[in-house]
Order: sequence, then C-alpha cells, then structure tokens
Amino acid sequence: MLDALREAVLEANLEVVRRGLVLYTFGNASGIDRASGLVAIKPSGVPYENLGPGDLVITDLEGKTVEGTLRPSSDLATHLELYKAFPKIGGVVHTHSRFATSWAQAGREIPCLGTTHADYFHGPVPITEHLSPGEIDMAYERATGEAIVKRFEGLNPMAFPGVLVVGHAPFTWGKNAGEAAMHAAILEEIATMAYYSVTLNAAAGDLPKTVMDKHHLRKHGPDAYYGQVKK
Amino acid sequence: MLDALREAVLEANLEVVRRGLVLYTFGNASGIDRASGLVAIKPSGVPYENLGPGDLVITDLEGKTVEGTLRPSSDLATHLELYKAFPKIGGVVHTHSRFATSWAQAGREIPCLGTTHADYFHGPVPITEHLSPGEIDMAYERATGEAIVKRFEGLNPMAFPGVLVVGHAPFTWGKNAGEAAMHAAILEEIATMAYYSVTLNAAAGDLPKTVMDKHHLRKHGPDAYYGQVKK
Amino acid sequence: MLDALREAVLEANLEVVRRGLVLYTFGNASGIDRASGLVAIKPSGVPYENLGPGDLVITDLEGKTVEGTLRPSSDLATHLELYKAFPKIGGVVHTHSRFATSWAQAGREIPCLGTTHADYFHGPVPITEHLSPGEIDMAYERATGEAIVKRFEGLNPMAFPGVLVVGHAPFTWGKNAGEAAMHAAILEEIATMAYYSVTLNAAAGDLPKTVMDKHHLRKHGPDAYYGQVKK
Amino acid sequence: MLDALREAVLEANLEVVRRGLVLYTFGNASGIDRASGLVAIKPSGVPYENLGPGDLVITDLEGKTVEGTLRPSSDLATHLELYKAFPKIGGVVHTHSRFATSWAQAGREIPCLGTTHADYFHGPVPITEHLSPGEIDMAYERATGEAIVKRFEGLNPMAFPGVLVVGHAPFTWGKNAGEAAMHAAILEEIATMAYYSVTLNAAAGDLPKTVMDKHHLRKHGPDAYYGQVKK
Repeated sequence: MLDALREAVLEANLEVVRRGLVLYTFGNASGIDRASGLVAIKPSGVPYENLGPGDLVITDLEGKTVEGTLRPSSDLATHLELYKAFPKIGGVVHTHSRFATSWAQAGREIPCLGTTHADYFHGPVPITEHLSPGEIDMAYERATGEAIVKRFEGLNPMAFPGVLVVGHAPFTWGKNAGEAAMHAAILEEIATMAYYSVTLNAAAGDLPKTVMDKHHLRKHGPDAYYGQVKK
Repeated sequence: MLDALREAVLEANLEVVRRGLVLYTFGNASGIDRASGLVAIKPSGVPYENLGPGDLVITDLEGKTVEGTLRPSSDLATHLELYKAFPKIGGVVHTHSRFATSWAQAGREIPCLGTTHADYFHGPVPITEHLSPGEIDMAYERATGEAIVKRFEGLNPMAFPGVLVVGHAPFTWGKNAGEAAMHAAILEEIATMAYYSVTLNAAAGDLPKTVMDKHHLRKHGPDAYYGQVKK
Repeated sequence: MLDALREAVLEANLEVVRRGLVLYTFGNASGIDRASGLVAIKPSGVPYENLGPGDLVITDLEGKTVEGTLRPSSDLATHLELYKAFPKIGGVVHTHSRFATSWAQAGREIPCLGTTHADYFHGPVPITEHLSPGEIDMAYERATGEAIVKRFEGLNPMAFPGVLVVGHAPFTWGKNAGEAAMHAAILEEIATMAYYSVTLNAAAGDLPKTVMDKHHLRKHGPDAYYGQVKK
Repeated sequence: MLDALREAVLEANLEVVRRGLVLYTFGNASGIDRASGLVAIKPSGVPYENLGPGDLVITDLEGKTVEGTLRPSSDLATHLELYKAFPKIGGVVHTHSRFATSWAQAGREIPCLGTTHADYFHGPVPITEHLSPGEIDMAYERATGEAIVKRFEGLNPMAFPGVLVVGHAPFTWGKNAGEAAMHAAILEEIATMAYYSVTLNAAAGDLPKTVMDKHHLRKHGPDAYYGQVKK
C-alpha cells in the first residue's frame, strides 16, 4: 500500500522537474494515505536525479518520521497543515515555478482572465497574507500552512486547487500527488498568460461570471461533458 | 478516403504538440472531407501521446457521430460553424498557445506591425465580441462559432486564417488540417513579436497599407513570386 | 571553389535554424565568391530539412541565375545591394528572429546598453527609414537593400555588422556566411537583453563612449587581446 | 592536485553552457588552489565544445602563466582581484546570462523580493559603480575587480555570492568553481523572477527582514535545517 504511495509521490516529484518547474533541489511533492494517515514526502535537499522510492520519508500527520533515514523536506509542516484542513486532497506540490512565483513576489492574486484559468480555478488564484514576525520565529513552515488555510475560509479547495504564498511561491494540491503536480504545471501556465495579458492591458479583469461558471462546470460540475465518460 | 483524412488530422493534432502550442489535452484539430461532408476531430480529453488514427471521431456537419466510440472534442460545435460558413477551408485548429491567448485575454486584436504578420494575415488579427449570458447558457460552443462568423462579415477568411475568441484563445484554419496547424504556429509567433513590439513602443501601429499589400500579395496574390512554381 | 561556397552557405542556413532564429521557411543566408562575383543563396520557400548544397541557387551580382533550377530567395535583390555597396563582406543573413524583429516593428534602433553589445556593434544597431509607396511598387527588395545602404552613409559596415529594416526584420553580414549567421544569433541576444533592460529602466541609454570603445577594440582593434593569437 | 582543480574548473565551464547561461565563447569560470596560490581559468575565445582539461591556463595570483600555451581569459585580472580580496572563495564564474545582464544594463540592483532570493543572497544583489575613463584606459579588467571589491565594503561575500557589474554582466563565486557555477544559474533565476515581479508591481520591494533572515539562515546559519546532515 505504501509502495504505491511512494511510487506516485516519486513520480510527482519527477514530473515537476520534467515540466521545468524546479531548479536544482527547489520544490517538493507529497502524498497521503488517508486510511493510515501516513504521508510520503521528498527528503530535504536531495538532487532529483538520485531520488528513488526508498528515499522518500514517511511521516505521520504530526510530522514524526515513521519510515526512512533522511530528513523530510523542510516544508513538511506546511504540507501537513493542508492535509489536516482539506480532507479531500491526497497530494500537495510546492514549486518555485517562474511566473507563479513572480505573482507571489508581486503580492498580487492572479485574476481569472480567461477560460484556461476558469477550467481549473473557479475564480482568481488566492494569495496569503504576510506572516507576523512572531509566526516566522516560532514555527515558520506550520504558520505558512495556517496562513493558507485561513485564506481558504469560505473557499472550496477542490475548486481552487492552489494558492500563492506571498513573497514566496505557489502550493498546489489535488486528489493525489499526480494531480497536484499537474495543477502546478497548469498554475504556471495560467500565471504566464496572465502576466502577458495584464502587461498588454492593465485594465483586463475577471471573465464574466457566466463564462467562468460555464467553463469550470463543463469540466468539473455534475453535468460535466469534457473528456470521456468514466466507466 | 477517410483514412487519408484521419491521418492528416492526427498529424495536425501531433504537430501542435511538437510546436509547443498545447499543454496536456488542451487544443484540438479537425479536418473535413467536402465531398461527403464528414469531419474528423480529436476525441475530448484524450492524451496526445496515446492518440491513433482510429481514435479520431467522424461526425457529420450536424455533429452526429458517424464513426468512432469516443466523445468528440467539446469544441466540435465551434469547428462545425466554421466549416458551414467558410466553404473554402478544409481544416480547423484550436489551441491555448501562450501569446495568442494572452492577446485574447487582454481583449485586443493584434495589430499588423510587420511583414511577418502581413505575409499571413492581410491586416490585424480580429477578435470576437463577448457572448451574452443567454448564448453561453444555451449552446456555448456553437455560439462561439457564430461569434467568429459574425466577426468575419466583410472579411475574407482565406486572407485572415485565424481569429482570437475574446477571453478564451485562438482558432485558426486553412485549406486542410496541416495548414491550419501551421497557421496556429505562425499566429503564435506573430502574437509573440507583437507583444514585445507594443511593450517597446505603445504607439506602434499597423504597417503602411502599401507594404502590407506587397507582402501579402507576393506570397498569396495572383502574381505571387514567393516559393517555387507549382507544377 | 563554388563547392566550398555552397557548403558554407548551406551550413549558415542550417545554423540559423539550429539557433532558433527561423520558423518554417522564413529567413535566408547567402555568400559571395568575390573573385568570380558569384553569389550562392537559399532557394525560395524550400523547407530547411530538405536542403542540400545542390539546391542552392548561384547568381551573378545582377541576380541572373548561373547555376540551379530552383527560384532564388525572394530577398535576393536585397542581398545583392549589400554585396555591391559593402566590398568587405562575404556573407549575408536574413532572419525574422523574435526580439530583433520586435525592435524593427517598434521602429526603434537598439541602444548600446552594455558590453555584450559593444563587443560586436560599435554603437546602437541602426534602423532604416520607411520606403515610399513608389519604391515598394517598383522594386521592393532592391529598394530595401538601397535603404540599408543609405542608412550606412558614414557608418563602417564591419563595425556595425547588421541592421533593422523598419517594420520588417534584421539583416546581418560578416566576412563570410558563417560569420553573418553568428552575427544574426548575437544580434538576437543583444536585442533580447536590450528589451528587458529598457522595460526595467526606460531611461537606460548608451554605455559611456570609453567603455564602448574599450570593449569593441579589445576584440576588433589593432591591439585586440581577446581570443588566441592568429598564427 | 592541479589535476583535480583542472577537472573542477572544466566542469564549471561546461555547466554554465548546459544551463543556457552563455552563448558562443562568452563567459568563463576559474578556480583557485589556496595552498599553492595557483588559479586555473578558461583560455580566451576558445569554443566550449573543444575544451579539455589541458587547455585550461594555470596562472599565479599576479596573472603570470605557470602552465599552458593558450592565452587566459581576458577577464583573468577581474577574477584575481576577487581571489585576493575574498579569502574564503575558491571559484569565480562570469557569464552574460540574459536577465542578470539586463539588470546590469538597466543599472539597477536586484531587490530581494522573495524567499528564492533570500535563500541565496542575504539582501539585494549589489551593483558596482561606473569606472572612470582613466580606470578603463589603464587596466580595465583589474579596475572591474577593484570596483567589485569596493562595492563589497561592509558586505560578507559568502552571504552575497555574486554581483552585477554595471553596463556589463554578473560575476558569481562560491567555495569552489562548481558552487560558483550553481550561483550563476541561481542568480539568473532570481533575476528572471525579479524582472517579472517588478513589471507586475513597480512598488514591489524587499521582503520583510524577518522572512529574509529566516530563509537565509535556515539554509546557511549555524542552526541550518535545510538539506541532509553533513557527516
């Protein structure tokens, strides 16, 4: 059971490299087995090219290592806050992908300018508030997770599968690690096109709500008609 | 006969991937056999790497599936409106390519700033009007096609082989699916250079009409002298 | 003798493709044999992947085909004007490379903002004037060459190995076709960095003359000390 | 002993090519053996693809060639000033990488806008002052090194592993040539994201000091907890 989780998490870690979303050892992907409450995550600072399934670290939801001899990613505490607060998610990915990070550094949420965006995010990509000096000193990575959870009050994390951490970079999630990695790639594409759009037209704003709903729901709603019928 | 159409449409679908114009399953290409009125189109949401000629869906001009077990692309109805309104076209391609989509999201037509543009589009790349909420609710994809056709009142679709759908992305066409795919790549290049040009000089505008005509007609006019003589 | 010219010109044509400076059949490279006054140039509209040395067209300086069965590049007349006016050049390359073309479309010369630029161009990259409607109608490609030559009154073409044709794209040259291709790649890099520089700081201007001279002359002056001593 | 240095310096020179940081023969990497005071550096203007360890030039700290028959990089004197002034560094890399060079050409230091930046530079990336005409005429490359050293008065070069030379390009360093090359790649990434950030939000400024310290020190401080424990 954990073998399948390890394989899926390893694959998600490699996928963000193949998609050009990480440089060196930046970034990390994790997945959770909800039955046992165990999380598999990338070890900290290990080059992706040397990574095997046995190098992944297995922890419980409090961050205690259950299997593995390497240190888990230093962002583990952020991942754990998301798993605890968003019960439907099965994977989390963190990258410093170029355009999503640039929006985070600019301190701006990404407006929903087009249907590519609306297909995946049912509105602007949210951005967190700055942490207080106290939060940074005490438990920085956990506080980052808490800031994300706070920002999602009133938002459905399955309709907004990612967030920008202000001054830092994006986190994305999905029903498993592979979908979280796909959302990392799509968020980067959305962020790229939004950059070019707003620099072409500073007044460009959110799509009309009818179009936004139409696109999101034709893919994700109860009457979705995009893709093939699941049997 | 349909075998050749299937092969050409498959090849056009793969070409837009090779050219970096689509991410994941975004985008779709189709072609029409004018004699029988049958259209071959990519199935909805199927990964390009698994696509074979037998996976393409064959429909009639009303969108009824004639051959194939998969669902056609959700944008089929848009393609069909174009085939019905533009009798000389034989292929249609839809992508979310980065710069063309950014212009669509910015709500701006692409000015004809240079000869690269004039070689393929005999003036600015047109952009559609927004759909009404009613159109979106009733038959969104068909209404998208109708909005394109409406925008082309008074324009020759063979001299303007593509369009931006506002808040969405480009559609291109050509005498067959392969040419439609080539026009998708060229539109993206034109859109890219126009982005850099207008951000360098906000006052940059259309080429003088004499240059625009010269370039378009040396390639496409009755006395064209670009390329080799067709035997 | 012409065999070596054919090989060098073919290689220059392929080099601009490998460097990502051309899309489809855009662009062309030529070279001249000064002893015989014969020019080898790419045929018009032939895909690069099929190009062999025997496909190149050999013409005299008046543009009359001396060897070859294909039509020469439609830009031949521009190349010929450059060979006639600039006796020290041995090769010419024309591309629609992305950033150089964007400056041409923006109608701006490229300021000499840094030492990368000064290493190759001893001042701003010049841009031509617009052609008159009469020039466009009569002999467009020759008039383009004449406009370049006119812009170079008072400029040394060996110290400024390229130009932007306004609303069109760059031409570069060098002592042979290979060097002209290298200058096409370097002009594109200079144009790219200049774009990012002026959008970061609209007031950025030419380097101080002392630095510009220092860099240009340490590479190209009589006391050049860059690179290895030629034996 | 020098064999290992040669191999490491060769590898650093090739790494900056693989990372897309240099075009043609631009750029150079060196390393120092502190015990003997000998420096290995790339020869001037030699194509990277032909470079072997035996082609590297070995000089002393005064720039006198000790081993090798080729001329050393014309930027050697700049490297030597850095080795003399910064006793903890073991490698230096110079590139004309696109975005870092654009900031240098724009004459702006790179603000510390995010945690990616703070992980490597403990504040803005510094930029040098312009040289005087006298300095340029007399000993340009040495004066460039002196200008860097002057800019670092009061700054720890191990906490700021690189600099922008105004109107020119970046230099980076590290505990050896390999780390200097990694810092060249990371500086380019930081410069890229800073470009997009400030063009999205001209008012974007440095991270709060608490976050900057937190990120820099979790990776580099005495209580660092990023990566695996060194044994």
